Amino acid sequence: MNSNKHISITVIKRLPRYYRYLGELLDNDINRISSMELSRKMNITASQIRQDLNNFGCFGQQGYGYNVENLFNEIGKILGLSRNYRMIIIGAGNIGQALARYTPFKKRGYQIAAIFDNNLNMIGKTVGDLQIQDIAALETFLAHNKVDIAVLTLPGKEVADMARHVVSLGIKGIWNFAPVDLHMPDYVQVENVHLTDSLMTLTYKLCNNVPPELNESN
Amino acid sequence: MNSNKHISITVIKRLPRYYRYLGELLDNDINRISSMELSRKMNITASQIRQDLNNFGCFGQQGYGYNVENLFNEIGKILGLSRNYRMIIIGAGNIGQALARYTPFKKRGYQIAAIFDNNLNMIGKTVGDLQIQDIAALETFLAHNKVDIAVLTLPGKEVADMARHVVSLGIKGIWNFAPVDLHMPDYVQVENVHLTDSLMTLTYKLCNNVPPELNESN
Repeated sequence: MNSNKHISITVIKRLPRYYRYLGELLDNDINRISSMELSRKMNITASQIRQDLNNFGCFGQQGYGYNVENLFNEIGKILGLSRNYRMIIIGAGNIGQALARYTPFKKRGYQIAAIFDNNLNMIGKTVGDLQIQDIAALETFLAHNKVDIAVLTLPGKEVADMARHVVSLGIKGIWNFAPVDLHMPDYVQVENVHLTDSLMTLTYKLCNNVPPELNESN
Repeated sequence: MNSNKHISITVIKRLPRYYRYLGELLDNDINRISSMELSRKMNITASQIRQDLNNFGCFGQQGYGYNVENLFNEIGKILGLSRNYRMIIIGAGNIGQALARYTPFKKRGYQIAAIFDNNLNMIGKTVGDLQIQDIAALETFLAHNKVDIAVLTLPGKEVADMARHVVSLGIKGIWNFAPVDLHMPDYVQVENVHLTDSLMTLTYKLCNNVPPELNESN
């Protein structure tokens, strides 16, 4: 699937949502759904759904709709979920520890291999089934363990240097929780969770009474 | 600011980013910036910046650029930050507790007034400077305390009912962390943080080697 060069970020960001809805349908033993029904459930127009999915192949069948399990599996493959991912968390503060204990990741094939911090008071403590390691051990750890994603839950001031450091050690995926935008080489993929930005967006909506259609797509 | 009806969600979601960059400039005692410099820093075209900001008023001045403090304050007002917000957290699991302890919110005027759970083993325990309250006390609490935002850090299966419940008790803003989309009345504003969706977007990018321009706007 290296040819999807022209798919917009808006479509890409809807894929996990499709995957989530289809997973719920499967959990409820629903094996077949029309684009109209899926449209009603997801609050996206049926034509948008068809258009989105057509980017990735031919999934629906006129008069039948979608085979839920098939579509679920195909979108999973598109999202790269046919394999497992190993992640490390750097920064064992509140958010880092919460993510280390967050169980839904494992279900999707995301495994947390280690958690690091530079605070001597934290190193050695246990979080879930991991022991917080000294950040000084990072290089050795990465030399002996294949890691796909570094989860950066560090203060804003430290995150850019750490991002450069993990990339120099071979990491290609960064999940960044610091309130900073990272400028990385082209071959590095970054996804941000900017908590305060999200909260500010909410208060903007509250203050400006934005219409409901703006509330769906976030 | 109730007249900004036609501003797209993409522009709205860029506002916290402007606010963040301008705050950093202020912290570094930079009081004036051209749209070109801001453009370079933020990796957005200068014309996009001008277009975004023109939605909200006349900020720049030809040949001078932007007055950083003024623009920071104005964007803060647009984001609704000229007042404080009181929030409650419902669900004292890993993420709920991490948010209760997350200090950057306070700096922006977001105050966490209480944290609730229905788990008897949790109720009464201390998180930061709050004591976890029984969810049964929620109605009484809201009758005596003005709360703007409910932060929902509950399991997916419980969140829709709880959202309806808090809305029936007068809450108009919901910050949802459960992997579920909430369908709320038009006057309720919802903002989601879907952690697993974000992680799946990252693995999509990793698997499909998306070009760097798709990496900037998230």
